[in-house]
Amino acid sequence: MDGDGFPLRGLRVLEIGHFVAAPFATRLLADLGADVIKIEPLTGDPVRQWGEQVDGKSIWWSLHGRNKRSLACNLKDPKAIELILRLVRECDAVVENFRPGQLVRLGIGPDVLRRERPDLIIAHISGFGQTGPYRDRAAFGVIGEAIGGLRHLTNQAPGRTDLPPVRVGVSIGDSLAGLYAAFGLVSALWQRDRTAGDAKPRTIDVALTESVLSLMEGMLPEYGRLGKVRQPTGGGIPTAAPTNAYPSADGAYVLIAANSEPLFAKLMGLIGRPDLIGVARFSGNQQRVQNSVELDELIGQWSRRHDSETLIELLTGEDIPNSRVYTAADIAHDPQYRERGMILDVHDEAFDGPILHPGVVPRFGDEPNAIRWPGPAIGAHNEEILRGLLSMDDQEIFVLREKGVIS
Amino acid sequence: MDGDGFPLRGLRVLEIGHFVAAPFATRLLADLGADVIKIEPLTGDPVRQWGEQVDGKSIWWSLHGRNKRSLACNLKDPKAIELILRLVRECDAVVENFRPGQLVRLGIGPDVLRRERPDLIIAHISGFGQTGPYRDRAAFGVIGEAIGGLRHLTNQAPGRTDLPPVRVGVSIGDSLAGLYAAFGLVSALWQRDRTAGDAKPRTIDVALTESVLSLMEGMLPEYGRLGKVRQPTGGGIPTAAPTNAYPSADGAYVLIAANSEPLFAKLMGLIGRPDLIGVARFSGNQQRVQNSVELDELIGQWSRRHDSETLIELLTGEDIPNSRVYTAADIAHDPQYRERGMILDVHDEAFDGPILHPGVVPRFGDEPNAIRWPGPAIGAHNEEILRGLLSMDDQEIFVLREKGVIS
Repeated sequence: MDGDGFPLRGLRVLEIGHFVAAPFATRLLADLGADVIKIEPLTGDPVRQWGEQVDGKSIWWSLHGRNKRSLACNLKDPKAIELILRLVRECDAVVENFRPGQLVRLGIGPDVLRRERPDLIIAHISGFGQTGPYRDRAAFGVIGEAIGGLRHLTNQAPGRTDLPPVRVGVSIGDSLAGLYAAFGLVSALWQRDRTAGDAKPRTIDVALTESVLSLMEGMLPEYGRLGKVRQPTGGGIPTAAPTNAYPSADGAYVLIAANSEPLFAKLMGLIGRPDLIGVARFSGNQQRVQNSVELDELIGQWSRRHDSETLIELLTGEDIPNSRVYTAADIAHDPQYRERGMILDVHDEAFDGPILHPGVVPRFGDEPNAIRWPGPAIGAHNEEILRGLLSMDDQEIFVLREKGVIS
Repeated sequence: MDGDGFPLRGLRVLEIGHFVAAPFATRLLADLGADVIKIEPLTGDPVRQWGEQVDGKSIWWSLHGRNKRSLACNLKDPKAIELILRLVRECDAVVENFRPGQLVRLGIGPDVLRRERPDLIIAHISGFGQTGPYRDRAAFGVIGEAIGGLRHLTNQAPGRTDLPPVRVGVSIGDSLAGLYAAFGLVSALWQRDRTAGDAKPRTIDVALTESVLSLMEGMLPEYGRLGKVRQPTGGGIPTAAPTNAYPSADGAYVLIAANSEPLFAKLMGLIGRPDLIGVARFSGNQQRVQNSVELDELIGQWSRRHDSETLIELLTGEDIPNSRVYTAADIAHDPQYRERGMILDVHDEAFDGPILHPGVVPRFGDEPNAIRWPGPAIGAHNEEILRGLLSMDDQEIFVLREKGVIS
């Protein structure tokens, strides 16, 4: 079963990326066994400064950089460009997320790279894509999420609060773009190799904005057909009721999803309002959606009287789908995640101990994948890569280091 | 360039799915050229009842079902099971999202399917995965998102509101699971075919909860190392300031991301507070993050005095990244999306006219992919599939229809 967890073993990818989107794409590839070589500036990917630090080292990096090899070099030096060009001959694909045109300015544009490797797959990730009137605009995740339509819908219903619409709690636009890039790259790879390698170049052009828009369900078609501008619905779902996050006596929220007839009846029994089963305004999902504010208020009056532990016990006893709103602490101690190998203690010498990682998604076969190694130090694999892939000797590597081309 | 936009041409996938996650996975595959055969009950996938309807037909379905073929049959009839078993011989992969064990109960579990097709790739999508103590629990997207940790972080900062934490405006847990399934499926396919087909079975086991957790950045590692439980930060980013959604005079919000030194200085100039450039509490990103409430208040005082059009003009004039919070209407009229082929009028005979679709992501090559056809009617491809793939004749099809096996 060895090959099962690592279907991408044998794929080699050069990452010329930074921050979130491209490194997330390559983490996905590396998690499934690809050999990812990350090109970093001598000072490292600036994402290494993000989030909590211990002794000047990023904890997130242990995860974000895992299973990849790091080659640190100064891309402003022509000798480093030469290294890239030699390396790309040994690679199937390049993933990059600089501003459109930046690789051309560095002297490693697609044409130059493909002179070395004609069948190279190149995945570009940017804010707005490689073409069009906005292509040169700055690519910030939050802006991609707003232009994709997600920010507008992630909010309380109109008129319920004066606070600004919240951001999804993670860089969702970047992660989605990374997922699409990884999916596109492997699709191109299959096309290339099922015909024993057709030597054609293949290009994937992923925009953050478009990756977000791609997930917006009926929002765009419904606008086009009915002129309906979809509005946010807070904790609820616009098409199903009751389903929301309900307050408890201890200040936590409990999610309840009881939007079918039998589940609704069970819930009304539980909250002591069996008289509401079968009344016209709550009969059928459409009716409940229209009266969901009243319904949520009724459920909330009940839920506020119990602490969250009790609520969960009561709901689970009636087989009504429910959950607490998990924090990092809840996740770390969840038996299902543990059993599935989705919470892993990974030894990281940068921290002289274990770092908690989420496991590899998707899971292949019967066993969860091991994490081969945590995020490496800047340039940790310089020598290994230059010797192993480019057959350089001590002297050549010494010279490159002396001249400040590599670290 | 024909092959470029459709790298998955030649792949055939059987979808035995419903609602969002599995159909989203197969939409991604079909958009890139795969032949997706969707098995539906005679009454259709219940997702056809979701969202806005015109003459009893779902507008979202035009998008959600696009580029797929529909085969409607009654899976409780042994003759339908026989059809599935014959069809699976012609397929590379199956994507399903029923409760774990449901396919086995129907008589089309993995072992049975692989008796017909030994090298079948099977992608399972479920709430909690195919193993572990929670495997049989109901799989609702909102619960997957809560257990993945996303719901907790998508909220105003603690103490800022009594309203429940909002749901991300779309079924993000389902869509993420669909993306991971599509990525895993194509990865397994490459592994199979690069060795000219090794005839091994391959299984992908995607959980909604795990797909969400996989995107949670430093949340879990930081908890493990420091005991820090990450908390929501409303419209802002916990690691960068200023960046938020700011109110305008006309009630709209404008996103501003000015979290570098030069952008911060420009913004302070624009809001008439150049005296704040260089003061200790706003010097450097770390300092600004610590004082972001004060900073957001100052920027908000300025932004409230202008309407959103003016704000965008002023910010763009200074080259400060900004955006309105796009609604469906903004998206439909955006010139970048239009130029990139990301807003498409697709003729849909179910509606006797055009339906607005988002384009195909990721984009391959120079031209956006065409939408081959919109979401089909229930069983629209019954005859085509039974004749073309199973070589059935009129008589056989007539009998199946007479007996209510197919529609």
